[in-house]
Amino acid sequence: MTTGKLLVISGPSGTGKGTICKKLFEDFENIVFSVSMTTRNPREGEIHGQSYYFTEKSNFEKMISEDGFLEYAKVFDNYYGTPKKPVIDQLSKGNDVLLEIDVQGAMQVRDAYPEAVLIFILPPSLKELKNRIINRGSESEESLNKRLGEAMHEITYADKYDYAVINDDLDEAVKQVESIIVAEHLKVTQNIAKVIDSYRKEI
Amino acid sequence: MTTGKLLVISGPSGTGKGTICKKLFEDFENIVFSVSMTTRNPREGEIHGQSYYFTEKSNFEKMISEDGFLEYAKVFDNYYGTPKKPVIDQLSKGNDVLLEIDVQGAMQVRDAYPEAVLIFILPPSLKELKNRIINRGSESEESLNKRLGEAMHEITYADKYDYAVINDDLDEAVKQVESIIVAEHLKVTQNIAKVIDSYRKEI
Repeated sequence: MTTGKLLVISGPSGTGKGTICKKLFEDFENIVFSVSMTTRNPREGEIHGQSYYFTEKSNFEKMISEDGFLEYAKVFDNYYGTPKKPVIDQLSKGNDVLLEIDVQGAMQVRDAYPEAVLIFILPPSLKELKNRIINRGSESEESLNKRLGEAMHEITYADKYDYAVINDDLDEAVKQVESIIVAEHLKVTQNIAKVIDSYRKEI
Repeated sequence: MTTGKLLVISGPSGTGKGTICKKLFEDFENIVFSVSMTTRNPREGEIHGQSYYFTEKSNFEKMISEDGFLEYAKVFDNYYGTPKKPVIDQLSKGNDVLLEIDVQGAMQVRDAYPEAVLIFILPPSLKELKNRIINRGSESEESLNKRLGEAMHEITYADKYDYAVINDDLDEAVKQVESIIVAEHLKVTQNIAKVIDSYRKEI
């Protein structure tokens, strides 16, 4: 059986990457979520093992020391990370695993698992991104500018990714990401030797 | 403007690669044919510059000496080849160029133009390939066995290709090849630097 693909999707907030990921889960039955682990307290309605794996700081740090994360970060006083084992288990079952993470996380994943497929979702333009954020409402001018500055910083990482998709039209962007996933599964790898052998055995 | 992709499609005869290529031309408007050059005489109805570029042996050999072919072969007393210049011209216009050639030709193209995207079309099995050849009719048992031997020889080259597509269901195979083409255009290349710059200029 073929190993699944580890798919990493990043992009500035407002590019619609969440919506794209949701569509991928609908359209491909063998793509599974990765559940993150965190040391912050559960919020109302959050379910352990589904929203997050909730754990103690001491356990998280033990796992860091044992190289147990594909990526992790400390945000203020809390850790957030992607535990390695459940991801590797799913990949070896032949499932694809989708991680929607930021650029720092993606760079860590690439180092930990070089076969990962990194896809960057770009807005059609910064102006358009600005409009989308404004239309969501509830942003002060100051926080809007901060968001755009962060977006530009993230965009400078796009050249570290394998693929870049411009989300101008959502359906088109979804189709493009799906094409990437299909194509990645058709790449000739070591597995082809087995395939060639299977023909040979017929003779 | 982005450079087009040089797409090379190979596979044993009977795998349906001709039908797949025809569908690609229908579905993608910026894929163009490459017209081969030959020293054999035109047959009735063949048009110079469309069926083939017909030329003299001395001219063909001069072009070989000037590295003017992406690939060429001598079959009995006649040369057949893909002239380099018209292909490169189309690629720099941003068009994709599709070459449906055999494995020897494909290996030459890969050496001459390493950015080429090599796609191998496989039959679901040798047994199925045999059935397809029989259903086409007009094959003696001897020629059938020769054809299958050639097919097996070609299949051993599949591991030199970038992608392998099994043509079990034609529509599915076409969709897969189209996904490869779409994905190849989304790969992050040197061009991304210009894209990132375009966002920067908006600030």
